[in-house]
Amino acid sequence: MKGAVLYGPRDIRFEERDAPRIVEPTDAILRLSATCICGSDLWPYRGISPVAEPTPMGHEYCGIVEEVGKAVKSIRPGQFVIGSFATSDNTCPHCRYGYQSSCVHREFMSGAQAPVLRVPHADGTLVATPELPHAEMIPSLLALSDVMGTGWFAAVAANVQPGKTVVVVGDGAVGLLGVLAAKQLGAERVIAMSRHPARQQLAREFGATDIVTERGDAGVARIKELTKGVGADAVLECVGTQESMMQAIHATRPGGSVGYVGVPHGVELNGEELFYTHVRLHGGPAPVRRFLPDLIDLVWSGKINPGKVFDLTLPLDQVAEGYRAMDERRAIKVLLRP
Amino acid sequence: MKGAVLYGPRDIRFEERDAPRIVEPTDAILRLSATCICGSDLWPYRGISPVAEPTPMGHEYCGIVEEVGKAVKSIRPGQFVIGSFATSDNTCPHCRYGYQSSCVHREFMSGAQAPVLRVPHADGTLVATPELPHAEMIPSLLALSDVMGTGWFAAVAANVQPGKTVVVVGDGAVGLLGVLAAKQLGAERVIAMSRHPARQQLAREFGATDIVTERGDAGVARIKELTKGVGADAVLECVGTQESMMQAIHATRPGGSVGYVGVPHGVELNGEELFYTHVRLHGGPAPVRRFLPDLIDLVWSGKINPGKVFDLTLPLDQVAEGYRAMDERRAIKVLLRP
Repeated sequence: MKGAVLYGPRDIRFEERDAPRIVEPTDAILRLSATCICGSDLWPYRGISPVAEPTPMGHEYCGIVEEVGKAVKSIRPGQFVIGSFATSDNTCPHCRYGYQSSCVHREFMSGAQAPVLRVPHADGTLVATPELPHAEMIPSLLALSDVMGTGWFAAVAANVQPGKTVVVVGDGAVGLLGVLAAKQLGAERVIAMSRHPARQQLAREFGATDIVTERGDAGVARIKELTKGVGADAVLECVGTQESMMQAIHATRPGGSVGYVGVPHGVELNGEELFYTHVRLHGGPAPVRRFLPDLIDLVWSGKINPGKVFDLTLPLDQVAEGYRAMDERRAIKVLLRP
Repeated sequence: MKGAVLYGPRDIRFEERDAPRIVEPTDAILRLSATCICGSDLWPYRGISPVAEPTPMGHEYCGIVEEVGKAVKSIRPGQFVIGSFATSDNTCPHCRYGYQSSCVHREFMSGAQAPVLRVPHADGTLVATPELPHAEMIPSLLALSDVMGTGWFAAVAANVQPGKTVVVVGDGAVGLLGVLAAKQLGAERVIAMSRHPARQQLAREFGATDIVTERGDAGVARIKELTKGVGADAVLECVGTQESMMQAIHATRPGGSVGYVGVPHGVELNGEELFYTHVRLHGGPAPVRRFLPDLIDLVWSGKINPGKVFDLTLPLDQVAEGYRAMDERRAIKVLLRP
């Protein structure tokens, strides 16, 4: 089979790889209905997090179970399933605490930009849909694998509550779906920070009530202005840079919360400064598995349509063009059809 | 009147100062029944946070109201009152959110190591006891002014819940009262980190179920051992150094919380490392005013006796000896009688 492999900065190749097969008795093999490119794939693509060797890319996936190992009990061939970028046994103490992405058996997935994928700990990682989905629902189900689950975790980590004022820093797919999550969780006011017209438009569709185009200190000043000098109850940090993190922290009111899901790159927090902000900080790799059953319900019943973040669909063999489109911000998120 | 003034490292003087008087119509003047020395006073005393000029010291106080300004409505001369180290109007948005120590009118108190004290925003800062207290209750009421309120906030910020496992880093007065707070909030297991026999003893009196004498990585390893490899649900960081903060973060389970109340000195947090711990971080100067009414009730009804942290009582004119005793860890906390 052929899949996407990153060789170095901006050198992504669609090339022959060994077809995955069952290795452990807890594995499942999926034939993917769709896969995609993540904002976080751009860190190694741009050489900011260099790869040490040619690396199969992709960690977002959904599709049909082809085969399962002997120890797999709840997942069966023929089911349509969704999994997260982090595998989990869903039984260890961390999983039972709702932090499946810190499972003692966690492995970060890779190699999902391919037609076939091996998923370890299939019983604890994969969740099946009630029946086989219609084709038009697949983008929204695929979005649950990472970006929707991650945006949802950002909102939960930021303690979004009904009636509250929420700010979302970052207008990538995760930030946009953070807007959707905040709206679903009952936020009264959702302020999206974006200077990109198409993304602003999608943010509004997802429930943003205000758009702020300023960044950094000017962005913070604008948030303060919009909240009568107080700051926001909850801020979702969906980028991962020093600037975005400080923007998030300073836009938050004392006693408010920052939910941060952008993998921090070069972020350093000064303890004393953080102390006097009175901000609550929570984040990390999203425990998507915790949210999957509820999010599948929301998609299945048509209440949310997170698949709208895919504004470019390409055949898998054009994966390199997909990376370019996202790198140049021509596309918010690229869906790939194997 | 004479009060304590810090001139430089280890140079504390008991010397003549102007007697406080009403400056703003919202002020009150208190005649102090007791005052004390705070662990945080040791930072400037040791020269770690140098003072730029001779500085009146002390921010913990309780006593009898002597006089109030014209705008003061709820506080009356003759009442016994307790205030916090941070003044608050108790009406601004931050106060109403429970973060009175981020009040828009916040001033950090100083000069309380003296017989008489001016308290700004008396109505919002001071809380009166039901009647004049007996002398033996005064140490516990004084403790509410900072250390008990701060230990309580550490436990609340760390999300201590009934049945949970709690670790307390720091065996100063705040840490010891953090143990008491965790116990009061229903923690099942309270692990105090201390290598000092007298403090271990007091920690046990306050409700500690386990004592860990190891520090740093060894301390974390011991906590992991005691929690079957999982880590604690809630960790109270009551020191403020890089080592204590990292010890707290690494002793916490994924999804657990660190409540940090030790003013950070030279603490730097790496964003990426924090991200993968999945720890929730909340702290800052404790909003003691939020907790004062309930804590006064607990002391008044004899349910808690935080005054036990005072293991040395001196007349105010021996304040310099009090600082020496705390600096050399001969005393946990020194009460001063004006």
